[in-house]
Amino acid sequence: MTAPLRIAIAGLGTVGAGVIRLLEENGALVEARAGRSIVVSAVSARDRSRERGVDLSQITWCDDMAAMAARDDVDVVVELVGGSDGPALALARGALGAGKGLVTANKAMIAHHGQELAERAEESGAPLRFEAAVAGGIPVIQGLHGGASANQIERVYGILNGTSNYILTAMEATGADFGETLAEAQRLGFAEADPAFDIDGVDAAHKLAILAALSFGTRIDFGNVEVEGIRRVRAADIAQADALGFVVRLIGVADIEGEPQSPRLLQRVRPCLIAKTHPLASIDGPTNAVVAEGDFVGRLLFQGPGAGAGPTASAVVADLIGIARGDRSPAFALPAARLRTLDKADSGARTGRTYLRFTVADRPGVLAELTAAMRDADVSIESLIQQGEAEEGGAVLVSMVTHQGPVRCVREAIALLDGSPILADTPLVMPILGTS
Amino acid sequence: MTAPLRIAIAGLGTVGAGVIRLLEENGALVEARAGRSIVVSAVSARDRSRERGVDLSQITWCDDMAAMAARDDVDVVVELVGGSDGPALALARGALGAGKGLVTANKAMIAHHGQELAERAEESGAPLRFEAAVAGGIPVIQGLHGGASANQIERVYGILNGTSNYILTAMEATGADFGETLAEAQRLGFAEADPAFDIDGVDAAHKLAILAALSFGTRIDFGNVEVEGIRRVRAADIAQADALGFVVRLIGVADIEGEPQSPRLLQRVRPCLIAKTHPLASIDGPTNAVVAEGDFVGRLLFQGPGAGAGPTASAVVADLIGIARGDRSPAFALPAARLRTLDKADSGARTGRTYLRFTVADRPGVLAELTAAMRDADVSIESLIQQGEAEEGGAVLVSMVTHQGPVRCVREAIALLDGSPILADTPLVMPILGTS
Repeated sequence: MTAPLRIAIAGLGTVGAGVIRLLEENGALVEARAGRSIVVSAVSARDRSRERGVDLSQITWCDDMAAMAARDDVDVVVELVGGSDGPALALARGALGAGKGLVTANKAMIAHHGQELAERAEESGAPLRFEAAVAGGIPVIQGLHGGASANQIERVYGILNGTSNYILTAMEATGADFGETLAEAQRLGFAEADPAFDIDGVDAAHKLAILAALSFGTRIDFGNVEVEGIRRVRAADIAQADALGFVVRLIGVADIEGEPQSPRLLQRVRPCLIAKTHPLASIDGPTNAVVAEGDFVGRLLFQGPGAGAGPTASAVVADLIGIARGDRSPAFALPAARLRTLDKADSGARTGRTYLRFTVADRPGVLAELTAAMRDADVSIESLIQQGEAEEGGAVLVSMVTHQGPVRCVREAIALLDGSPILADTPLVMPILGTS
Repeated sequence: MTAPLRIAIAGLGTVGAGVIRLLEENGALVEARAGRSIVVSAVSARDRSRERGVDLSQITWCDDMAAMAARDDVDVVVELVGGSDGPALALARGALGAGKGLVTANKAMIAHHGQELAERAEESGAPLRFEAAVAGGIPVIQGLHGGASANQIERVYGILNGTSNYILTAMEATGADFGETLAEAQRLGFAEADPAFDIDGVDAAHKLAILAALSFGTRIDFGNVEVEGIRRVRAADIAQADALGFVVRLIGVADIEGEPQSPRLLQRVRPCLIAKTHPLASIDGPTNAVVAEGDFVGRLLFQGPGAGAGPTASAVVADLIGIARGDRSPAFALPAARLRTLDKADSGARTGRTYLRFTVADRPGVLAELTAAMRDADVSIESLIQQGEAEEGGAVLVSMVTHQGPVRCVREAIALLDGSPILADTPLVMPILGTS
């Protein structure tokens, strides 16, 4: 049996404590599968006195987190502090710079600094792993890195934020509106006190940028993710979608488009309509799911718990087992220098079907103005419903679904209506997944 | 860049040709991800003259397949011949004995000889991999071997045979009976001319035995899989299940039961009823899906194409990429000597809900006799339907669903009815998934 793999854990929130508990409870199994034991040499967190339900008595406590990177009794640093910069990034740089492996659950840090960290890891020959950063316990990073690695991945997409999915599926089940459902989700612990990162799509965008880099062999490019969250989705939109055979889900999609000699990268997080028969339509509550479409394998789907102490600890320790077995392959499956920089695709160049919802004044001529704008922008309407009941202020909702057509035309129609006195609100535009 | 990984391919059917085509088309990508190129040194198949749509001109053709194991220009043998014994097994033994790696898609061989081959691989320090043997292109072997490896797996189950799933979902869609649907599936290429391995559950049992060994760290034990196929499922059963909120699927389930000090292994392939809300209920056509439940991660689901040249080649080359990267971990994730031998669990000791269907004579007193047998065996009936229309010979169908209760009691009730003149046919018994 080889020498133990010695780790230091930075951050002892629920995930950090979960990792220690997992290594306690499943230690013998982990040792057998890894071919060597995994031992915690050192830990660091803000509050030493907090009760965490795990035994820290045999582990060195470090007040100076950054100093853990230099310890002789540490082979791998596990970073569970969070935040794209600050102490987490300093620790990550320090660990890789000192030739230590780095395992992290920090999607923001990888989304912003993944390329730099991958380069540092390669320079020092140390492994960098982040299974827990995407989709919690689902081994989708390993799936793309290993299981699907013989394929050109053509598209990767999925439900990447459990809070948003919980809210949308709860709205679907109860008919309640967004604000009310968010409050209930916060009460039940499915949404943070400050839910902005989740419901505004930023968390999903971090994960999507990581999946895209790994899938397409591109440099991570979080800045070019188009992001729109779920705040503006209303109960009426979900009811409307339902009547048309769709559900509403927050979906991250990435693919490569354009000519092979000038490929462009599309990354988009938006609420979308999905046909009820699509595998993602049945993903309820805080579950995550990722679909990867490969040129040889076809469509793979990975589904499971997207967050939580147990699932996230499972992903962190899976990375540690891989490192213990000797895996030193590059973080993004290709050498960092070979990762391509692609221009951002113009999503307007695509064709697809689109759902549009307008909040309009309830008076004569409104539908004529809306439909004239569609006609003038060359948008063909498949179905249109004006809701019977008036909203606050006497406004009514008009929803429509377009035929397959250029997304650019839909934008043009919206632009034609910009500033029109008939609109009480900015129109809500949702792509229909699988058509664009 | 390290020296190429040199492989020999035995068997050039659709999968073997698919592997060569994949290495041609995605060769640069595979090389970048593997850190070295993968080159085909030698091939062997029965018929040299057959047109396979791939260029073999630069590859050595071996008439003697077994001799490939001894070639100096081969690091890994890819066995795609099939059959649990015979030339495939001889080649596998020869390759591992000579210290070559072995990658195989041969579920029958692994189900029967996996333990022996894993031991041989460890003796010689050579890797043994079989991603393509289970669920085609779905990277579930890697998922259990790596991504879920920090967990005690508590249960593994899924839809493991595409032909059976195609037939059951087609029966569901059309209302047609089994024989007719099988003939149509054969015409469309979804079922073999001799479909016995698929529809009688043997193929699914091979895969289940492999999943169980990997999940539970047990010695592979194909002989103790309880197997029942789908031949006896009738259109009326599917209609009946539908009315009760279920679909019928051929499911392989494995779990550990009994006291921790005397664990027993249950492995069962049977047509089952599944609630329409269960993730497996929406798996249509030839798709495969595997669920693994881990103590920390919870429920993971892997879904994708269960067969075909492209998906299977994808799995084979994923194994080769892993080997090229240097992965030498044990085939079943634990050293072969540490794999446990467990006794077979008595599935009668479980509790659950059960669907039963009787073909009975249409005359007075029949229902009284059926229900009396249930009462005498202590089986509590939740719902019972006697179908209106008479079958051939004047028989009618009586379907019932039991309340949660000991499976043993259901068996006892069936035994009480054994030989009764009211039965025109052996009763069909289907467990309800998730309840037992």
